[in-house]
Amino acid sequence: MPGISLITIGNELLRGRIVNTNATEAAKILRKYGFSLNRVVSISDTREAILHTVEQELADHEIVILSGGLGPTRDDITKHTLLEWSNSEWVWDKGTLEFLEKRYERRKRAFTELTRQQAKVPSACEVIHNPNGTAPGMMFRHKGRMLFSFPGVPFEMLYLLEHGAVPKIREAFPASFYKSGVIRVADIPESAVAERLDELEHDFPGGMSLAYLPRHDGLWLELSIQRPAEEEAIAQQILEEELAKMANIMQDKVYAKGDHPITEEMRRLFTQNNLTLGVAESLTGGNVSAKLVEVSGASNYYKGSVTAYAVSAKEKILGVPAELIEKYGVVSAEVAKEMAIGVRKLLQTDIGLGTTGFAQDSGEVKAHAFLGFADQSHADSKEVRLVYDRKVNIERCSNYLIQWCLKKVRETLD
Amino acid sequence: MPGISLITIGNELLRGRIVNTNATEAAKILRKYGFSLNRVVSISDTREAILHTVEQELADHEIVILSGGLGPTRDDITKHTLLEWSNSEWVWDKGTLEFLEKRYERRKRAFTELTRQQAKVPSACEVIHNPNGTAPGMMFRHKGRMLFSFPGVPFEMLYLLEHGAVPKIREAFPASFYKSGVIRVADIPESAVAERLDELEHDFPGGMSLAYLPRHDGLWLELSIQRPAEEEAIAQQILEEELAKMANIMQDKVYAKGDHPITEEMRRLFTQNNLTLGVAESLTGGNVSAKLVEVSGASNYYKGSVTAYAVSAKEKILGVPAELIEKYGVVSAEVAKEMAIGVRKLLQTDIGLGTTGFAQDSGEVKAHAFLGFADQSHADSKEVRLVYDRKVNIERCSNYLIQWCLKKVRETLD
Repeated sequence: MPGISLITIGNELLRGRIVNTNATEAAKILRKYGFSLNRVVSISDTREAILHTVEQELADHEIVILSGGLGPTRDDITKHTLLEWSNSEWVWDKGTLEFLEKRYERRKRAFTELTRQQAKVPSACEVIHNPNGTAPGMMFRHKGRMLFSFPGVPFEMLYLLEHGAVPKIREAFPASFYKSGVIRVADIPESAVAERLDELEHDFPGGMSLAYLPRHDGLWLELSIQRPAEEEAIAQQILEEELAKMANIMQDKVYAKGDHPITEEMRRLFTQNNLTLGVAESLTGGNVSAKLVEVSGASNYYKGSVTAYAVSAKEKILGVPAELIEKYGVVSAEVAKEMAIGVRKLLQTDIGLGTTGFAQDSGEVKAHAFLGFADQSHADSKEVRLVYDRKVNIERCSNYLIQWCLKKVRETLD
Repeated sequence: MPGISLITIGNELLRGRIVNTNATEAAKILRKYGFSLNRVVSISDTREAILHTVEQELADHEIVILSGGLGPTRDDITKHTLLEWSNSEWVWDKGTLEFLEKRYERRKRAFTELTRQQAKVPSACEVIHNPNGTAPGMMFRHKGRMLFSFPGVPFEMLYLLEHGAVPKIREAFPASFYKSGVIRVADIPESAVAERLDELEHDFPGGMSLAYLPRHDGLWLELSIQRPAEEEAIAQQILEEELAKMANIMQDKVYAKGDHPITEEMRRLFTQNNLTLGVAESLTGGNVSAKLVEVSGASNYYKGSVTAYAVSAKEKILGVPAELIEKYGVVSAEVAKEMAIGVRKLLQTDIGLGTTGFAQDSGEVKAHAFLGFADQSHADSKEVRLVYDRKVNIERCSNYLIQWCLKKVRETLD
């Protein structure tokens, strides 16, 4: 297994202007091919930082991947720095030049000098064609090691990594077998999980490790195994056995297995059972609905939602009785339940869900919410405490509703 | 200005399981106090990686901040490694022990041995109290440099950085003055912006820099200045002057100034002009609504939304005529417009917005959408092309709608 280091270049990363999602996605791609990322370093757009870090990372890793700093603007200096580092000279890459000319002609955009400069590369590099943008990818071979340089634009970078770098890495290094599985638990603190799993962890077979990943939708337990490629069959079997043991130990707290979005679990459960869904939201303001439609195929069971942000909308569209709101208040178990009942009727679905609450503390009132559930034969509500900031509270409340809905529907089907 | 390096520890970062938002938030906190982050390194949970990286970063930076690996579970080994690194021995921190006992008593949770171990620290460190979790922060002084170690849980880490590390850094290093401003442009490629700004950039005063930040809501141009603390007044003035020049050059393409969310701009425009809003969504599925309510105070102008995912909901709730859908198809300019008109009536608001479209390519049909707008006197629609994946398309389409709404409302008010 080669050591792989990713260097992400850009002041915006160090100023907190953007989140380094490139590192996350690059890691996933490498894993898919049995490689793993050993280090990610984020540095500024300066010659010194680039030269220093390239040297440092090449000393410790067989593969170094640079991303960022290849745009046509003045603040992008990676290519110039690599020219200096590789002690080579500028050459025009004919392939890139032709590609750019055609691209600009097709899009009827002016082919400026700045854009043309994108086809100029250090003579020491091997060009990797970038079909998605103007900056070509580059590869340098250095004392038996490989240095890649890709643009920072996510879909350009990730394409070049998967289709440019991975094949070259595979040629040079046989990949090992890597696989992982996830069990998701809720309603239990991390330390209690750790105590339950202590013995299991202690007796782990070789190459196996467990990570505790706290998420907005509970605690994810990721079990993974890494073995030489020729042990694939046995490693696969060991992973399944250990996952089964873990699921058994955590049994009462498991709400999902696998790393698919919780909304994918919804889609499966509802479509497999021919059920339809409607949602009425207040404090979550459309967030539950937005999550549900992120999954392709949602329209097969999900009919729509009403965000009744104003009290009048709760009465008028969802038919929540004004007296009920008067009596219990708009943030109440009764209103959550009536919202679920109302949207179920309005959209003529099998199941209706509702949320009402305060997304943030306001004076004496602490943030909290009520969830509502309605099916053909009954309606129910549940109170949840919200202890984070407005945005996180909305996100968590949406997840609580979906988790609770999964549980309620499964109970009905049992 | 001290050099500051952040080391984020955790296999989950290198496996693509979580996005490194801690780095982003830490950078923002440091900027707030006039410091800047020079490097972020993500490494795995291994003794070797921690020791090697701590040495490397301490060689190049005055301040090194470690985050992660302080949980009670087996995969967290930062504290043990720092014990070895600092050549010291375990001591019980009385303050932490008392705090934990009280916390567990108050929450009526069993105080397990695993939790108790959290109060054990290397004798070489100075403990920094962590009111939000079980693992205390630690500071080590090393050859005139400072090494901090904090838990990786975001709100614990960020609290300890701001209230534990920053005061100690400020004691040792006078901060410089740092400030930045943002101008946001849309409908123009980055290279065309760069050509327009070339002369301005060339003549920048000392300490000034410009970053191009492509976002889902257009291109952000971030201009920043860094000067010694005593030059604050002049630096402030220079920044404002240069921002004004840049805004002037980009004039026709500017849609917002500042780094507030676009939905904050909506809240201001609508509340200042006493306008109310309702939204009807199809392909965006609640995402527009969810964005609008992220901003505190949204309820002052925003009345609610209908996600009419099913065709029948468009007809029944929004009153889009069935003949119109029959004639033009559900994804059409006419339907988008009627949805906007329908939700405006339903929620009795001044403005109504609508979206209909395909969030992803499907067979021959490329992803695209129609936006709808309606006010008291007219209705309008606009087609937008969507070229990314489902999730990004939904996000971009939501932003296009909000940007277009800002423009339309401003035009009406002019």
